[in-house]
Amino acid sequence: MAKPRKQPRPKAETPKGFRDYFGPEVARRDAMLRTIGQVYHRYGFDALESSAVETVEALGKFLPDVDRPNEGVFAWQEDADADRPGDWLALRYDLTAPLARVYAQHRNDLPTPYRRYAMGPVWRNEKPGPGRFRQFYQCDADTVGSASMAADAEVCAMVADTLEAVGIPRGDYIVRVNNRKVLNGVMEVAGVLDPADPARFADARGIVLRAIDKLDRLGVDGVRALLGAGRKDESGDFTAGAGLSQAQADVVIGFVSARGETGAETLARLADLVGLSVTGREGVDELEQIAALLAAQGYGGDRIVIDPSVVRGLGYYTGPVYEAELTFEITDEKGRPRQFGSVAGGGRYDDLVKRFTGQAVPATGVSIGVDRLLAALQAKQGDVARARAPGPVVVTVMDRDRLADYQAMVAELRGAGIRAEVYLGNPKSFGNQLKYADQRGSPVAVIEGADERARGVVQVKDLILGARIAESATLAEWKERPSQFEVARADLREKVREILAAHGLSGDAAGG
Amino acid sequence: MAKPRKQPRPKAETPKGFRDYFGPEVARRDAMLRTIGQVYHRYGFDALESSAVETVEALGKFLPDVDRPNEGVFAWQEDADADRPGDWLALRYDLTAPLARVYAQHRNDLPTPYRRYAMGPVWRNEKPGPGRFRQFYQCDADTVGSASMAADAEVCAMVADTLEAVGIPRGDYIVRVNNRKVLNGVMEVAGVLDPADPARFADARGIVLRAIDKLDRLGVDGVRALLGAGRKDESGDFTAGAGLSQAQADVVIGFVSARGETGAETLARLADLVGLSVTGREGVDELEQIAALLAAQGYGGDRIVIDPSVVRGLGYYTGPVYEAELTFEITDEKGRPRQFGSVAGGGRYDDLVKRFTGQAVPATGVSIGVDRLLAALQAKQGDVARARAPGPVVVTVMDRDRLADYQAMVAELRGAGIRAEVYLGNPKSFGNQLKYADQRGSPVAVIEGADERARGVVQVKDLILGARIAESATLAEWKERPSQFEVARADLREKVREILAAHGLSGDAAGG
Repeated sequence: MAKPRKQPRPKAETPKGFRDYFGPEVARRDAMLRTIGQVYHRYGFDALESSAVETVEALGKFLPDVDRPNEGVFAWQEDADADRPGDWLALRYDLTAPLARVYAQHRNDLPTPYRRYAMGPVWRNEKPGPGRFRQFYQCDADTVGSASMAADAEVCAMVADTLEAVGIPRGDYIVRVNNRKVLNGVMEVAGVLDPADPARFADARGIVLRAIDKLDRLGVDGVRALLGAGRKDESGDFTAGAGLSQAQADVVIGFVSARGETGAETLARLADLVGLSVTGREGVDELEQIAALLAAQGYGGDRIVIDPSVVRGLGYYTGPVYEAELTFEITDEKGRPRQFGSVAGGGRYDDLVKRFTGQAVPATGVSIGVDRLLAALQAKQGDVARARAPGPVVVTVMDRDRLADYQAMVAELRGAGIRAEVYLGNPKSFGNQLKYADQRGSPVAVIEGADERARGVVQVKDLILGARIAESATLAEWKERPSQFEVARADLREKVREILAAHGLSGDAAGG
Repeated sequence: MAKPRKQPRPKAETPKGFRDYFGPEVARRDAMLRTIGQVYHRYGFDALESSAVETVEALGKFLPDVDRPNEGVFAWQEDADADRPGDWLALRYDLTAPLARVYAQHRNDLPTPYRRYAMGPVWRNEKPGPGRFRQFYQCDADTVGSASMAADAEVCAMVADTLEAVGIPRGDYIVRVNNRKVLNGVMEVAGVLDPADPARFADARGIVLRAIDKLDRLGVDGVRALLGAGRKDESGDFTAGAGLSQAQADVVIGFVSARGETGAETLARLADLVGLSVTGREGVDELEQIAALLAAQGYGGDRIVIDPSVVRGLGYYTGPVYEAELTFEITDEKGRPRQFGSVAGGGRYDDLVKRFTGQAVPATGVSIGVDRLLAALQAKQGDVARARAPGPVVVTVMDRDRLADYQAMVAELRGAGIRAEVYLGNPKSFGNQLKYADQRGSPVAVIEGADERARGVVQVKDLILGARIAESATLAEWKERPSQFEVARADLREKVREILAAHGLSGDAAGG
């Protein structure tokens, strides 16, 4: 590191849109990732941790003729070699594009089908907003190399299992399944797509997809505007529409609203809507297969439903698409009730690997938005989840020449599996030491001054009880339930253990 | 994602110097990170996950007048706002510089001292080489806000505990401790540093540090050359020297070689070498405090030693420096014995936070190179560590119309805690299905064709036993120990469990 030069001090700030995660937040996310990983693993998926950095070329998101191809991603150009210009590199923006690259690169060494799960941060170079960060965690599971609808059905079932495993009870979530081929069939019937020349209406199709994806937010009228001439939002910004006629828009809206009381009813309506379109019938058939597999495994409409309003925004899906939504209401910071919405989504993308190899490789998978799911759980569980995990037992420093003795105490506690530390700040003010223990959420403080030392005892302070007494106790209670105990030095460990147990704490409580 | 356009296929490759980690590698690293985190946590350290992206300004590694400040780091410039040019952002190159930024930013909300641990990837924009990657994991623990040598002693003890916790037995590692102030004192005595004007010889001091840091590799003669006029290596490249006189170099070499039989002997020699230098005496005093604390806690010379040859290459250390080295020999790919060397290092850096706040904040901490430590453990444990973790139980597909029944089987197995999956590739070739099970390292395959179905039974194939028999059994053994069992469908779960238990496997074995 170069020596700091005389110049204005650097600002101690994360870049805009980035943030830091502290103790309990890190522990909670780790615990959730571990739980999700266990479900994925039990389903036969293998872990993969691909490089966070990819070539822009492999990510494949950008037009090569853009001078600085950093739209949506964080990208930079490598230094040039003697013989060639530097590659453009970028941080991955999801875990699917890297999977396609990994599979294409290592396909001779990987089993087929290749079931893999991956968890880690992804980065998006987007305008940050409240609660919207430019680095966030995803947790994906994908099956590459299987064209079977059983692979899609399995992923949907696994998402349901996963949500229950992390603490979302059945009834508080729903996995919704649809199929892009059905939508394509509907658009063929409506004359929006030309089956003989799929590229012809590609732009309109993209607009239709994105419009339907906004159904939750904009309602039917908003979507209808986007299907037609376009839509002006409250801020006055205009979004161009797909240019569909009234009749065409009616067909699309009919599709989106086709969900019936039962899966069978929905499928019958869809079969009707796609008419003779080959693609559309294929899509309905795929949905039927998925529905049958899920029903046979007991995943009923309380967990997974066919819902034509799900389309997902991404362009690369080619068949089934699915989305998991939390259905319970939470109250936001302003006390207003709101729904949490989607926490996972995915689908079948049969062409991503082909980009590299030229050979079609079918693939399907899901991505769970871990940070959103964590936020939902916290909002639901409220104060319980927000309660601070206990900090370490703090051994205070009454005599700075006796640090080694205090260290011996914490070593003894740690040896018994109890999280413990010596106060290492300036020991002059005893008040500061107790304030520190309080700030750490320490359950117990240990005090040994010269007097205690001479008598072979230590003071053990139950900080949790102490705080409770200070808050609410009457004088009688105060006298009855002391929160500070003098015990023989030899009994330190036992006494600390006893206090922790009385508060229902194990020594090595997580959360830190 | 933009539609792939007609153009050359992208290359399916990680960028140079990056790599992917598969199943067991990911599981092994996760397990190690968890173990290290548990030790750190028990010592009272709190988790922190800071943003992977920092402003170049906050990282503070670079001269502001370099046009593209990406020496050593991956950096890029943000798009400009209306009112100001875009910030330069970069991937963190270690976890210490971000900690200084986090502490400065959040110091009013953090306890003091702030003990934090952090684990995650860091990125270096360096020439990749064999075994040298541009993304690798670090696992750090630091105490910010404590000037006490007890903080340094604690970190050294914790490193020893951590290495033992991850499986390095006592005697196979050594933590070596030194102090930069002692070296500064020695250089003052030798006339290489001017205590009244420390900046005067800053460059020479840097060269001396880096020269000593190479002692292991270059030997005393190589270091002596670098202290003097400079050194030409085998490839003919010349490295400029510090320009010390013969007498001055002798003093420095004397310092580096000052390690005695005991800590007391080493400290006495160092006290001698620093003479009347105030800085030097302070350094010796600090080392004495650390040695006394460690001795009182029973960390003897078999675990932690004072060793003046440790200086660490980084420029920001201001006092104690320490390094953990593995002392066992391994054999490399070519069968040659070699030492593994340093797997952790750290020290006291009292000025890093001051860059931001203007106020001195003492800090000390260590970084464990997790990937190196993993490699060392694997090299030591050899085949045991490399043995593949078992894959999932594979239920084969004999009749593709009965996928739902096969799915019910795996659901039943998973419900019993057994990792299991249905084969989802093309089921036409049964041989391919067994080949797949073999490639996954599956312990058991389950087979149910029309015949079995009709009779209410399934075939359960013990693949581990099967492989063993195929390798070595006589015909008699073969007959005696069948590796395929026909059991009633209702007994499937019990039979699978029995086979797994016979091989010492739990159903949900890790490593995936």
